[in-house]
Amino acid sequence: MARRRQLYEGKAKILFEGPEPGTLVQYFKDDATAGNGAKSGVITGKGVLNNRISEHLMLLLQDIGIPTHFIRRINMREQLVKEVEIIPLEVVVRNIAAGSIAKRFGIEEGTRLPRTIVEFYYKNDALNDPLVSEDHIIAFEWACPHDLEDMTSMAMRVNDFLCGLFSGIGIQLVDFKLEFGRSWEGDDMRIVLADEISPDNCRLWDNQTNEKLDKDRFRRDLGNVREAYQEVARRLGILPEAGNGGDMKGPETMQ
Amino acid sequence: MARRRQLYEGKAKILFEGPEPGTLVQYFKDDATAGNGAKSGVITGKGVLNNRISEHLMLLLQDIGIPTHFIRRINMREQLVKEVEIIPLEVVVRNIAAGSIAKRFGIEEGTRLPRTIVEFYYKNDALNDPLVSEDHIIAFEWACPHDLEDMTSMAMRVNDFLCGLFSGIGIQLVDFKLEFGRSWEGDDMRIVLADEISPDNCRLWDNQTNEKLDKDRFRRDLGNVREAYQEVARRLGILPEAGNGGDMKGPETMQ
Ligand SMILES: Nc1ncnc2c1ncn2[C@@H]1O[C@H](COP(=O)(O)OP(=O)(O)O)[C@@H](O)[C@H]1O
Ligand SMILES: Nc1ncnc2c1ncn2[C@@H]1O[C@H](COP(=O)(O)OP(=O)(O)O)[C@@H](O)[C@H]1O
Ligand SMILES: [Mg+2]
Ligand SMILES: [Mg+2]
Repeated sequence: MARRRQLYEGKAKILFEGPEPGTLVQYFKDDATAGNGAKSGVITGKGVLNNRISEHLMLLLQDIGIPTHFIRRINMREQLVKEVEIIPLEVVVRNIAAGSIAKRFGIEEGTRLPRTIVEFYYKNDALNDPLVSEDHIIAFEWACPHDLEDMTSMAMRVNDFLCGLFSGIGIQLVDFKLEFGRSWEGDDMRIVLADEISPDNCRLWDNQTNEKLDKDRFRRDLGNVREAYQEVARRLGILPEAGNGGDMKGPETMQ
Repeated sequence: MARRRQLYEGKAKILFEGPEPGTLVQYFKDDATAGNGAKSGVITGKGVLNNRISEHLMLLLQDIGIPTHFIRRINMREQLVKEVEIIPLEVVVRNIAAGSIAKRFGIEEGTRLPRTIVEFYYKNDALNDPLVSEDHIIAFEWACPHDLEDMTSMAMRVNDFLCGLFSGIGIQLVDFKLEFGRSWEGDDMRIVLADEISPDNCRLWDNQTNEKLDKDRFRRDLGNVREAYQEVARRLGILPEAGNGGDMKGPETMQ
C-alpha cells in the first residue's frame, strides 16, 4: 500500500488519510494510558485485539440499525472508517457504579445504579475531560438539543444490545464510553457512532467471578491485561479457541 | 422570646424551631467559609446585612409570583420562614464566566457566556458539592423531571428579575446560587425558593469599575468585605444613606 499521510496520533490510535475522499484509516496501537496520560505503557497485542473486537461490535450494531463510521477491516491493526466531524463529547453509559461515578457520589463500586445513567464529558485533555450537563453542551454549542437527543437514544440502544450480547457470554457490561460524529451525505447530516468499542473503553466483569476483563486491569495494575482482552475476544467468538500462538487462559487463571 | 430548640447549625446560618408548626427561624451568623470550609473567618455585621438583603429580594420575588419560604423578618439577625424539605441541589445560574465554570472550561473570568447557563450541584459537603447532570438527578431521585422543570424555570425568572434589579443600581449579576424546597399545604406540594439570596451566594460586580461586591472579596482576600455587602444594601435602598454607625464607603474607595 502506498504511503499515507498521517492526520492525527492519539493515545491509542493513529488516523491516516483513507484511500478515497471522506475515508480514514484507523490504526490501533498497543499503547495504553490512564488518568489522562498520567500513567502509560504498552500492552502487546492490544491493538490487534481492539481492532477485531471493535469491528465485530460495530458490525453487530449496524445490523440493528445503529449508523456507524465503520466500513471494513483492512488488516490486523487497521480499519477503514468514514471520516466524520467528531462531536467533542464522551458519552458514557453506566449500569453499575464504578470508577468516577462511584467516587463522585460516594457509591460502592459494584452497586447497580437505580437506572441506566448517560453522562457527557467534554473531550478535552487539557481540561481533563470534565463532566458537563446538557445545558453546558447547548450553551457552548458542542451539540444542539436534537443531536443530544440522537446521541442519547443511540447510546441507550447500544447499551441494550451490548448488555444482551455480553450477558450471553457471561459478562456484565458495567459501563462504556462512546464517541459520535457528524457525517454528511450531500446536504444531509446524520450522527454516527465513531471511534471504537473495546475493552479500552468498556468495563466488563465476569459474571461468576467479578474478574475485570478490561482496561481497569491496566489502570489498577492487576496484571494479565492482554489475557483479559483475549478472553473477551474469545468469548465473542472472534479468536480461534486456541490460536494466535498465545497462552489462552480463562479468567479463572488470571488472579 | 422563649428559648427555642436549635435544629441545625450550618456554615452561615442557624435554624431554630419556629413559633408555629411548619415554621422555622433562620438566624444569620457573621461566619464565612470558602472552599467547603477550607477557609473560614468572621465578617462582622454580615449576618445583619444578609438578613436584610435576603428579606428584600425574597419579597420582591414574591411580588412577581415566585413562591418563597420567606414569611417575615423578626429582628436584625432573624427571619421567620416556612419549613420546607430542602431539595439537595444547589441551583446555580450563570450569566458571565467566573469561578468554577471559568476553570472547568478554560474560559477567562468576565467573559459573557453564550447564553445563561443553569447548573445543578449535589448539596453534600462530604462529596464537595459535585456538579451533576439532569440524568444523575433523575436516577438518584433527588428531584423528578417535573420538579427539575419547575426549579429551572423559576431560576430563569429569578435571574431575569435580579439582572434587571441589579442593573438598575449599577451592578452586574454574574452568577448566583439558589436552593429550593418542597412545601406541603395538605396534600398539595409545591416547590418554593428557600435559603437566602445575598452577596454570600451571588457574584455582583460594579458596572463601572468591575469591583467585586460579594463573597469573592473574602474568598480571594480582597479586603473590605463588609463594606462591599453594605454597598449592595445601600444601593438596594435598605440601608439609610449614612447610618448603622458604620463607615459607609463607596466601592471606589475599596481597592
Ligand atoms: N470516523 C472518525 N473520523 C474522524 N475522527 C475520528 C473518527 N473516529 C474516531 N476519531 C477520532 O480519532 C481519534 C482516535 O485516536 P485515539 O487514540 O482514541 O485519540 P484520543 O487520544 O484523542 O482519544 C480520537 O480523537 C477520535 O475522536
Ligand atoms: N425553609 C427552609 N426549611 C428547611 N431548611 C432550610 C430552609 N431554608 C434553608 N434551609 C437549609 O438551612 C440551612 C441554612 O444554613 P447554612 O448555614 O446555609 O447551611 P449549609 O452550611 O448547610 O449551607 C441550609 O442547609 C439550607 O439548605
Ligand atoms: Mg480515544
Ligand atoms: Mg448554605
